[in-house]
Formats: sequence, structure tokens, C-alpha cells
Amino acid sequence: MAFSPLVDQLLDALRVLPGVGPKTAQRMAMHLLERDRDGGRQLARVLMQAAEDVGYCQRCRTLTEQPLCELCESPRREDRLLCIVESPGDMLAIEEAGGFRGRYFVLHGHLSPLDGIGPDDLGLDALDAVMEQAGVDEVILATNPTVEGEATAHYLAQQLKPRGVTLSRLAYGVPMGGELEYVDGGTLSRAFMGRQPFND
Amino acid sequence: MAFSPLVDQLLDALRVLPGVGPKTAQRMAMHLLERDRDGGRQLARVLMQAAEDVGYCQRCRTLTEQPLCELCESPRREDRLLCIVESPGDMLAIEEAGGFRGRYFVLHGHLSPLDGIGPDDLGLDALDAVMEQAGVDEVILATNPTVEGEATAHYLAQQLKPRGVTLSRLAYGVPMGGELEYVDGGTLSRAFMGRQPFND
Ligand SMILES: [Zn+2]
Ligand SMILES: [Zn+2]
Repeated sequence: MAFSPLVDQLLDALRVLPGVGPKTAQRMAMHLLERDRDGGRQLARVLMQAAEDVGYCQRCRTLTEQPLCELCESPRREDRLLCIVESPGDMLAIEEAGGFRGRYFVLHGHLSPLDGIGPDDLGLDALDAVMEQAGVDEVILATNPTVEGEATAHYLAQQLKPRGVTLSRLAYGVPMGGELEYVDGGTLSRAFMGRQPFND
Repeated sequence: MAFSPLVDQLLDALRVLPGVGPKTAQRMAMHLLERDRDGGRQLARVLMQAAEDVGYCQRCRTLTEQPLCELCESPRREDRLLCIVESPGDMLAIEEAGGFRGRYFVLHGHLSPLDGIGPDDLGLDALDAVMEQAGVDEVILATNPTVEGEATAHYLAQQLKPRGVTLSRLAYGVPMGGELEYVDGGTLSRAFMGRQPFND
């Protein structure tokens, strides 16, 4: 015996969510059916609408249901500064940290030959168009500090060098508020190599 | 700056799921939009259909999209034995444990005067109907071993006593495979009170 066919289908469908196994799916389904059907209907409606209507910004490729995202629409950002990130979440994190006044370009991933993800999958045609049209003279390669993110940054640097733009990468180092004994060795040695003059 | 309005709506809508905070909602939304839109559409469709069509079995009140659930439809269960549980999940757990051959009745909760949940909210009219029609002569009060579950079992016992049926409650005791030092005191003292003759 199991739940009814439709409830079982719901348990299966919930498993598409990351980190949701059979027990969590059951807890979620029971919560929605027993205590919050209106919340479940609203989730179904918004999820369907987002799956249909959310696309990529024509300029920076972040997720948006408009042709251009809010940030690309803004006249108050510097066109000459471009920050390239792997994901919309990375873009949001940098915005929330504050301080960057330029524009973005979202790759939606990184180069990964084993998964068949090559330069064409990262929207590099669109990147070329932005470079041409916006008068970019400085590019920050803010891909993740991982092997794949590094490889992607190196590839992008090769592609962009002929344009004569300034290229940079986020500084590696120890995270603020962390204790040194818990920082991994690779990060520590990068932090040593990148040490800065101390002025007090 | 935030995500686009529709993506933000999706983040909010995902928060109806139990245990899903802002970070998890973002991870789920990004996964669905970046990597599994078909899974997202399927979840939206099934969730809407379940929210609309799943109701209560007319006899046992478990969740089902049919008038009667599969178990109530089965002619191979004993009508004279009735197990009363708080939730469809409890019913499934008992079925999966195996051994019980009777029928069920699902309360969808327990008495909770502070939350305004009284006897009427637990379907006790439907329970009366089952008791009348099915010739029940033994009832297992399998509400949860919690204060509210106990109170509900006591209330049900009072209601059912005039019918002259045999009433029982699941045995309290130490869980199989557990170590005594980690079993709470209340459970341990119940296990002592309920100790059984040992035959080897
Ligand atoms: Zn944009
Ligand atoms: Zn039923």
C-alpha cells in the first residue's frame, strides 16, 4: 500500500527540488495538502509562470521576465566596467556586498568539457556584442574560485586580451572573520602570496 | 537590487514549503530555472492538480482523489478491527510495518483547545457512521505518544466506551535497536511498568 496515485505523483514531482529526498517530499506534500492548499496553489501558479516566462536579459543574460533586467535598464551604472560571473546568484551576492558600480555578464555555468559545456554554451557571442557596443575597458573575471572557474577565467582572458582591456580577478585570501587554523592550505598560501602592505 | 519580480515571487512562493528559508528557496529556484524547467513545470502541474482534486476518503478520511481509498475498497481487510490515527502518514507507517489487517480512521490532527481544534474538526461524525455500519468490535487508539495524542485517545475512549467495543493503545516501551542510555526517562519508566515475562 502507498498513498493514492495523485499523492504519489506529488511526492515524485517534489523530488526535482535539490536536497529533497523521500522523507522530505512526504513532509512537504502532507504540509501542503493538510495545512496550506492555498500556498500550494500559489506555488504551482508562480512556478508555472516562471518556468514559462523567465528568460535571459538580452544584454547581461541574468534571469528576467523582461527583455532587459533592471540593472541593465539603469542609466546609473558605468558601461566601461564589466563583471563576468557564473550565475545570477553570484551577481546578486556582489550587488548585496555593494561597491561595484559597473555592469555584469552572466555565463550560466563554466567551461566543463566532461559535461560537454563549451564556449558556445556560455553566451560568448552575446559577450562579444556587449564588448563592442558598450565601450568596456575593464573586465573583472569573477568566476568561482574553483578549478572550473579558474579555467573559464583563463579562457575568457585569452579571448579578451586582443581587445586591449584591463583584466582582473577577485583577490584570493582568508575570509573576513575566519580563524586561520580553519582556513585550507591552498587559500592560506594564496593569501601569503597576495599579502598587502600594512599601514596603521 | 534583487532578482526580477517574477523570480522574487517564486522565492516567496517556495517559502510555503516546510523547512525552506531564503537561502534554500534561492537554491531551489535557481536549480529549477537554470537546470530543470521541465521538472518545475511537472511539479507545478501535479501540485495544482493535487491541491484541487485530493480530498478525504468517504470512509476512513485518508487523503485520496477517489471517493474511497484503495484500502477501504479492498474486501480483504477485517471490518471489525479499526485503527484510529492522527495522519495519513501514520496510516502509511503502520501499513509499511505490516501485520495489521483491519481498517483505519484518520483524524487529521488531534484535540488542541488552544488552536481551536475540537471534536468536530476530527471528523467524529464520520467515525460514528463507520462504527455503526461496519460492526467494529475492537478499536486501536493509535494517536501519537504525545500530550495531545494522549488527550485525544482519552477523549475517544470516553466516546466509544458506551458501544461496548474493546479499546487498546499501542504499547509504550524502548525502541528496537536503541541504547538505553539515550532513551528518555518517561519512556524508560513506561517500559518498566509495561515489562513482559521473558521466556527463553
Ligand atoms: Zn541585464
Ligand atoms: Zn479509506
